[in-house]
Amino acid sequence: MKRLALSEYVAGIKNHDRTILGRAITLIESKNVSDRLLAQKLITEILPLTGNSFRLGITGAPGVGKSTFIDGFGSHILSQGKKLAVLAIDPSSKVSGGSILGDKTRMESLANDKRAFIRPSPAGDSLGGVAQNTLETLLLCEAAGFDFVIVETVGVGQSETIVKDITDYMMFLTISGAGDELQGIKRGIMEMIDMVVINKSDQVSEKELSRLISNINYALHLFPAKDSNFTVGAFTCSALNKTGFDSIYEELEKYKSKTEALGYFKENRNNQQKAWFRRLTETKILEYYLNNTELQKLISDFEKDILSLKVGPMEAAQSILDFIKK
Amino acid sequence: MKRLALSEYVAGIKNHDRTILGRAITLIESKNVSDRLLAQKLITEILPLTGNSFRLGITGAPGVGKSTFIDGFGSHILSQGKKLAVLAIDPSSKVSGGSILGDKTRMESLANDKRAFIRPSPAGDSLGGVAQNTLETLLLCEAAGFDFVIVETVGVGQSETIVKDITDYMMFLTISGAGDELQGIKRGIMEMIDMVVINKSDQVSEKELSRLISNINYALHLFPAKDSNFTVGAFTCSALNKTGFDSIYEELEKYKSKTEALGYFKENRNNQQKAWFRRLTETKILEYYLNNTELQKLISDFEKDILSLKVGPMEAAQSILDFIKK
Repeated sequence: MKRLALSEYVAGIKNHDRTILGRAITLIESKNVSDRLLAQKLITEILPLTGNSFRLGITGAPGVGKSTFIDGFGSHILSQGKKLAVLAIDPSSKVSGGSILGDKTRMESLANDKRAFIRPSPAGDSLGGVAQNTLETLLLCEAAGFDFVIVETVGVGQSETIVKDITDYMMFLTISGAGDELQGIKRGIMEMIDMVVINKSDQVSEKELSRLISNINYALHLFPAKDSNFTVGAFTCSALNKTGFDSIYEELEKYKSKTEALGYFKENRNNQQKAWFRRLTETKILEYYLNNTELQKLISDFEKDILSLKVGPMEAAQSILDFIKK
Repeated sequence: MKRLALSEYVAGIKNHDRTILGRAITLIESKNVSDRLLAQKLITEILPLTGNSFRLGITGAPGVGKSTFIDGFGSHILSQGKKLAVLAIDPSSKVSGGSILGDKTRMESLANDKRAFIRPSPAGDSLGGVAQNTLETLLLCEAAGFDFVIVETVGVGQSETIVKDITDYMMFLTISGAGDELQGIKRGIMEMIDMVVINKSDQVSEKELSRLISNINYALHLFPAKDSNFTVGAFTCSALNKTGFDSIYEELEKYKSKTEALGYFKENRNNQQKAWFRRLTETKILEYYLNNTELQKLISDFEKDILSLKVGPMEAAQSILDFIKK
């Protein structure tokens, strides 16, 4: 597809033109060098228009009904007068070539609603690339007037960390039964989440449900208090029957207004911005040096010496640094 | 504890002196700058003595009986005429201040056997630090004559990746029941492992066990073939009753001899060495720049501009690089 001029992208996004938004995202995802330069300018131009959405991360194991939940809860969000964008992070899409959101029929109601915008996960060749693309896509969506953004993750590898790094709130979706509620919770995820939602709650007895909730609350209780000062709560819903959305949405509203009043909301975003800048700087510095032909030669010479035990990796790394310094 | 002279550490390690080995590991783990320099020299000195062990990584969820397994299987390894060192990676030990191996009574038989050496996980302040310490500890153990090294991981965060990066073979320990066998398998772990061991196999019926094995084999079958050309197999054992160790040990022997003959064993280690060198180099370059006071000032100025949306993180990172270049 042909590139537009910078001003055309900017004007289109300001006018909430979805076709141009889509093309801007394609530009962002391009690996072509001149596309990257244009994309960088575009992001700088639209930055002042960003920051006005609630950014919700959603994770959960396959089979807990994430698509149905996002479709149903997304429609509830729209009914509250919001404009919703749904993005996805799926680092495995680089392998399969596909994407968890490739098939929009996964979220039929949203796909047919003009107030919603669904964008599949970019097929990046590195985790860092996928993270960068998703963050820039999120910013473009905000600039185009979407004031609620869901970032879905398949939970593979580090995808949850990426989502955590660019969202305001992390929701963990689970279901009852088969020990899944706790066993299936990936170790390390509990520290990351702000809310547990038990989906398909209509499929279990009241007794089973309250046992489950008390188990989850017990597990959550073992973790230190959140920086947000909010208690991680367990909520129930049936995405299929569209029940339970009200209390979940209310909790999100409450979270946003309280943390905004206390300053944490802004503080968290500022920390995310700084960390993003730090990562970009580190990547740029390393790319610059490690792409230097003279240095590449030196590195490959040292590799040979290391493999023949002539020099230790520590010493070799120090020699590389000494070479750079002079 | 007082430091020894370099020659004393080297002589002690060459003489397989366990006390000096212990003190050398303490030196390695020290954050003191002059200790670090001495440690670096020590590693270089003993490098020619390293490489002669089979490095086995073991992972598995809490409750599957890892300690009992390592205690029992470790004794089996000793009975084969090997000298065994058991190390651990536990990134969470920096939080708890403790260590999964702090209490040697977890592995009573090994703790009381002079042919075995147990070393708790270092309480590093960063994942990179823990990884570096564990690898250097492993090399010291090899130099001190241990020809079988087990590196245990608690499976938190990226600890499995670290273990994978420094071992020859990854064993995944699990138990039957409660859907744990597959649900509890952390996503992403299947690509990493070379063998599944079902522990406590005496506690389930033959029928249940064969159902479980066929489930695991089915799951394993979904992944691409390993670079080693070995099929990942499912083995059973009861660590408590010391059954099943024979076939597991035989498989490890078979793996070692076949991959050595085909060159993969050496190739894998070479790749690990190169990756280690690469990581050290990257860390050194970044430390050098990010500790520069002038640059730190520039970064903190840019942070302010980024937070007030005056400049995008991408542009700011580019400016930092431009500053470094000139």
